[in-house]
Amino acid sequence: MRALICHAPQDLRLEASALDTLGPQQLKVRVAFGGICGSDLHYFQHGGFGTVRLKEPMVLGHEVSGVVDSVGTAVTGFRIGQRIAISPSRPCNSCSFCLQGLPNHCINMRFYGSAMPFPHIQGAFREELVIDASQAHPIADRLSLSEAALAEPLSVGLHAISRAGSVFGKQVLVTGCGPIGALLIAGLRRAGAAHIVAADLADVPLACAQKMGADETVNLTQNPEGLAPFKANKGRFDVMFEASGSDKALRAGLELVAPRGVIVTIGLGGEATLPLNMLVAKEIDLRGTFRFHHEFAVAVEFLNQGLIDGKPVISHIVGFDKAHDAFKLASDKRQAMKVQIDFKQSADATA
Amino acid sequence: MRALICHAPQDLRLEASALDTLGPQQLKVRVAFGGICGSDLHYFQHGGFGTVRLKEPMVLGHEVSGVVDSVGTAVTGFRIGQRIAISPSRPCNSCSFCLQGLPNHCINMRFYGSAMPFPHIQGAFREELVIDASQAHPIADRLSLSEAALAEPLSVGLHAISRAGSVFGKQVLVTGCGPIGALLIAGLRRAGAAHIVAADLADVPLACAQKMGADETVNLTQNPEGLAPFKANKGRFDVMFEASGSDKALRAGLELVAPRGVIVTIGLGGEATLPLNMLVAKEIDLRGTFRFHHEFAVAVEFLNQGLIDGKPVISHIVGFDKAHDAFKLASDKRQAMKVQIDFKQSADATA
Amino acid sequence: MRALICHAPQDLRLEASALDTLGPQQLKVRVAFGGICGSDLHYFQHGGFGTVRLKEPMVLGHEVSGVVDSVGTAVTGFRIGQRIAISPSRPCNSCSFCLQGLPNHCINMRFYGSAMPFPHIQGAFREELVIDASQAHPIADRLSLSEAALAEPLSVGLHAISRAGSVFGKQVLVTGCGPIGALLIAGLRRAGAAHIVAADLADVPLACAQKMGADETVNLTQNPEGLAPFKANKGRFDVMFEASGSDKALRAGLELVAPRGVIVTIGLGGEATLPLNMLVAKEIDLRGTFRFHHEFAVAVEFLNQGLIDGKPVISHIVGFDKAHDAFKLASDKRQAMKVQIDFKQSADATA
Amino acid sequence: MRALICHAPQDLRLEASALDTLGPQQLKVRVAFGGICGSDLHYFQHGGFGTVRLKEPMVLGHEVSGVVDSVGTAVTGFRIGQRIAISPSRPCNSCSFCLQGLPNHCINMRFYGSAMPFPHIQGAFREELVIDASQAHPIADRLSLSEAALAEPLSVGLHAISRAGSVFGKQVLVTGCGPIGALLIAGLRRAGAAHIVAADLADVPLACAQKMGADETVNLTQNPEGLAPFKANKGRFDVMFEASGSDKALRAGLELVAPRGVIVTIGLGGEATLPLNMLVAKEIDLRGTFRFHHEFAVAVEFLNQGLIDGKPVISHIVGFDKAHDAFKLASDKRQAMKVQIDFKQSADATA
Repeated sequence: MRALICHAPQDLRLEASALDTLGPQQLKVRVAFGGICGSDLHYFQHGGFGTVRLKEPMVLGHEVSGVVDSVGTAVTGFRIGQRIAISPSRPCNSCSFCLQGLPNHCINMRFYGSAMPFPHIQGAFREELVIDASQAHPIADRLSLSEAALAEPLSVGLHAISRAGSVFGKQVLVTGCGPIGALLIAGLRRAGAAHIVAADLADVPLACAQKMGADETVNLTQNPEGLAPFKANKGRFDVMFEASGSDKALRAGLELVAPRGVIVTIGLGGEATLPLNMLVAKEIDLRGTFRFHHEFAVAVEFLNQGLIDGKPVISHIVGFDKAHDAFKLASDKRQAMKVQIDFKQSADATA
Repeated sequence: MRALICHAPQDLRLEASALDTLGPQQLKVRVAFGGICGSDLHYFQHGGFGTVRLKEPMVLGHEVSGVVDSVGTAVTGFRIGQRIAISPSRPCNSCSFCLQGLPNHCINMRFYGSAMPFPHIQGAFREELVIDASQAHPIADRLSLSEAALAEPLSVGLHAISRAGSVFGKQVLVTGCGPIGALLIAGLRRAGAAHIVAADLADVPLACAQKMGADETVNLTQNPEGLAPFKANKGRFDVMFEASGSDKALRAGLELVAPRGVIVTIGLGGEATLPLNMLVAKEIDLRGTFRFHHEFAVAVEFLNQGLIDGKPVISHIVGFDKAHDAFKLASDKRQAMKVQIDFKQSADATA
Repeated sequence: MRALICHAPQDLRLEASALDTLGPQQLKVRVAFGGICGSDLHYFQHGGFGTVRLKEPMVLGHEVSGVVDSVGTAVTGFRIGQRIAISPSRPCNSCSFCLQGLPNHCINMRFYGSAMPFPHIQGAFREELVIDASQAHPIADRLSLSEAALAEPLSVGLHAISRAGSVFGKQVLVTGCGPIGALLIAGLRRAGAAHIVAADLADVPLACAQKMGADETVNLTQNPEGLAPFKANKGRFDVMFEASGSDKALRAGLELVAPRGVIVTIGLGGEATLPLNMLVAKEIDLRGTFRFHHEFAVAVEFLNQGLIDGKPVISHIVGFDKAHDAFKLASDKRQAMKVQIDFKQSADATA
Repeated sequence: MRALICHAPQDLRLEASALDTLGPQQLKVRVAFGGICGSDLHYFQHGGFGTVRLKEPMVLGHEVSGVVDSVGTAVTGFRIGQRIAISPSRPCNSCSFCLQGLPNHCINMRFYGSAMPFPHIQGAFREELVIDASQAHPIADRLSLSEAALAEPLSVGLHAISRAGSVFGKQVLVTGCGPIGALLIAGLRRAGAAHIVAADLADVPLACAQKMGADETVNLTQNPEGLAPFKANKGRFDVMFEASGSDKALRAGLELVAPRGVIVTIGLGGEATLPLNMLVAKEIDLRGTFRFHHEFAVAVEFLNQGLIDGKPVISHIVGFDKAHDAFKLASDKRQAMKVQIDFKQSADATA
């Protein structure tokens, strides 16, 4: 069994890897598709992000779907051949944060493909995987395994929406329309936002944003003042989601959001310099959002029922043997939206 | 009738000023005491703050108490001689923000002593004042007119608390223990905070903070790492109030506040550079707070009932003729807490 | 100009009625369609509801659309011929409730066709109407005037949803699938409910509920224990909306809703006997919801964009001359969903 | 070692009882004081309440304090002789409710002295007790062990306050001023309620309510219309706490509470008949509250710091040998407030 292991920046290897023993409450899964996430890219490009650094080789990946191959002796409700989306979130369920209902802040979290703790938590870009049955979410016949691998980034968007309070009937701005921003927009439309404006620096993500439900799109490269009309009357937007990681966008947001408005910041950027007096005078609420937990089940339900269609976000599907190319492709944000690896084949395929 | 008029930085004059005609819904008031606020000091020292600048002479002051001198023909419930606290907040009650229940964001706000709009809104540091009856709040016999002039800065603290959601039973940090911070601490104790830690750079404000109800005080000049123990387990505080205007304090707060914690920022500082990735990863909520509205009545009720005792905050009382000295005194934050002007006398008096 | 006036129970007359003079901020409108609401029916059948009684003849109706016929001299943004949905809500914008942002509790509310105050507030079932420009909401070309007259009952549903907090990603039960319940279901689907179960005593409303977005329907006449499986594990539903006005439904709801769940009760029923100990032990939250305000604009936006399709709710359209028949038809809840009056024609038409 | 065991209504026996073995994470405690709660009284008087019935003999009691006698091998932070308040709440920390942060709804809860599950959960009215170290809360030197036994009913009040959202600066009504109501009033004062009105049918509880912080008291036996003035302007109270278990009080509350007001119902009464149309039209929010969890630590902290003084609530202290008399005394709500049993002595003592 092979896994995709990052040894250092630009040093990505397909290597043999042992499989965990199947426990009674577990499933053995053949991995089908895996989406490349921003954090995977950071490990590949820079060996980490912020203060997080690779200190040992680590299997990447946490956005995966698969097919059940063996069923643990104590598991009920699953059968061999079942198609599933796989949650990468494995909280301990016993620390103080878990017992407050905040598993995404679990002090012992074992989230796939993360170098935050040491030893690192090995990821899910591998041909086979042993998971806890609680990580497995059956998918509908209508849903492809490729779409199922969107459940994870969609969950990030759904959690960001819940962090905003309610967006129902509201005026919403999204800055940054990469895969997270685009899936977030689909979530916002589903959550009942009345009007969604999407802004980005490039056309490819904006075209996708429109397919995902944005009412208006603004290309800030071509039209740097494109959001200025929304500054009128102390700012038009009730809620803004900052998904570009740019502090310039955040800064602009303080003028675009109404008094008592909420800005949810998703991007794990670094330092940002902000005019705090505007945040104070308008009583704006700047909130972080981090991963998700129970939203994974909701994301699968929305995809299963067709209440959210993630297909426009998948721009490329690449065979496992060409994983290195997949990462290069995913690095070009003006061409690529979500790039997925197909673990079942070696040849390229474009969605 | 004389008023205290700021013409330019350091140029403060006691000058004759005409009085508005008394309308049927109004009261004429002899002003008793007026507290010097941070924004008054900014006009005096720098001619403004942020992008706000004095463009014409302006009467300063908005923290005042007084005694009713004449009663408008349509006013009920007030009598000559009545001692009152005076709210400086005069929203229009008809703009879209007023009709959303957000009068502190009123687009036509006429808050005393503010150079935000032009013509500027003239302030309340004057011997006599004509006010709307709705601005007048009778005070209890037990309360001095000097204490009554604390209702305004106390309201700022109470509003900040309401912006935090609830502090009942919570662990709270206050950074910056000037008059606003100290009155806020009294409000927090009254609002049921379980444990209050106060931090400042100087001893005078910390001694006051303790009298106002802080459980622990930390002098960050003497003990720069004094808050470090609170970083354990992802941060101990449920809520932090930043009242120093220092971005260093805010920055430190991101490490001291627990996941999903709230930081309320009160100080109208300028730019701040923040490690946004920490705000994101801990899902911290950074909220602005600005002025107050209905909290003024609550502040008077707390003072009237003795549920909050503001006396320790008043460090100096200076006669009207020496107003310039009062402003110099108020500028020294290591000596002075709240400096009040006594409009009824010229001689100095210390609280 | 004729209006539909209720003189007493069963005594409904088409009578000549004078038109208000057009003010500068007003529009004169030719009324197009008007939906018959439960409260209209109560006046027609019983002369009122609860303690509210007709004390003088009153024009019924508050769910209307129309076409602009004249434009007041100070009005901008409207033109003759413009098709509009008309909000029946006319708060005073100056009482204490309006200034708290709660116009639906306005102490001087002038809601069309209401016998709560005396003199009664005359309604909108009339050929022509003079309205404030702020009541007029332009509709999209794609929307028929008949659908536009659903904006009002849809607003009631949207407000009920906002009273529930958030329904995004949640398990929801709706009891009572008349026009309000059915439009509410469309609102819930749009607001991102993950799973919607609809219950009623009859098949016609349940068939409509399904078209509006319910995932499961339960006919409690045919299957009285149809909801019992949802009692497992202390109750499955996060939120329940009671739109039948039956206290039996509410009572059952206490067993079906999870601990800390929310029950929003919409129906203006009378007395209800409830097992309070269950509400206490499960910490259930029972909330009233009453009318709407800013939700009217959101309802029109959802209809204009096609984000909600109200057409399945309109079961009958009846000419103005046969208004009495329309009321009889609307009284039969097993046959009729929303019955609308077509003010522009006399002949019958079925949607 | 003896325990107080209820065999049937009125059949209360002091009997020998075995002690659990001390585990490594546990403490052995000599019980000091135990307060008689309403549910203890129900078992004593009626053998249960609602559908809950005694099906086997059960040790009563859950409001206890004590002194540490032995310390388990793995316990840190406790020593022999330490005086503690003891939380009766023992959730499983692993069911779905515990993992949502709702341990008071734990599906496997082992709350002392409860006949809800079978076998019943034995109570804490016994001379010695083995507890988990996590149940033990050290008390300050200033606090008596008798006062420490109030931590439990105070926790119930604090939890009820948190269910109300915030009471800071609000107008509050409390109906029913027995021990729970009186401790709740102290909590409300501490939580910053601006004005507290207390109503009851008898003078003894009202006198206590006043000592605990009520601003006004109303004896509804002597003055049945004493609350009527608060009905003006759609109702004056922002929040009401119903602690009498009377549906008449709840019914009256719907007229006394303002639109969008909150009524928290604490009493585990039975059926109540309510005018739901008023709840609907005023958009009132009726919320249950049940037990507590993390509030126990807060209650101990408030008592330890002297921020809440519970002494006025303790009306009688009775020696363990006369426990039967203590229950008779506690049954007379016009004489007795909190009756405590002193487990260390046999002679009577009155607080």
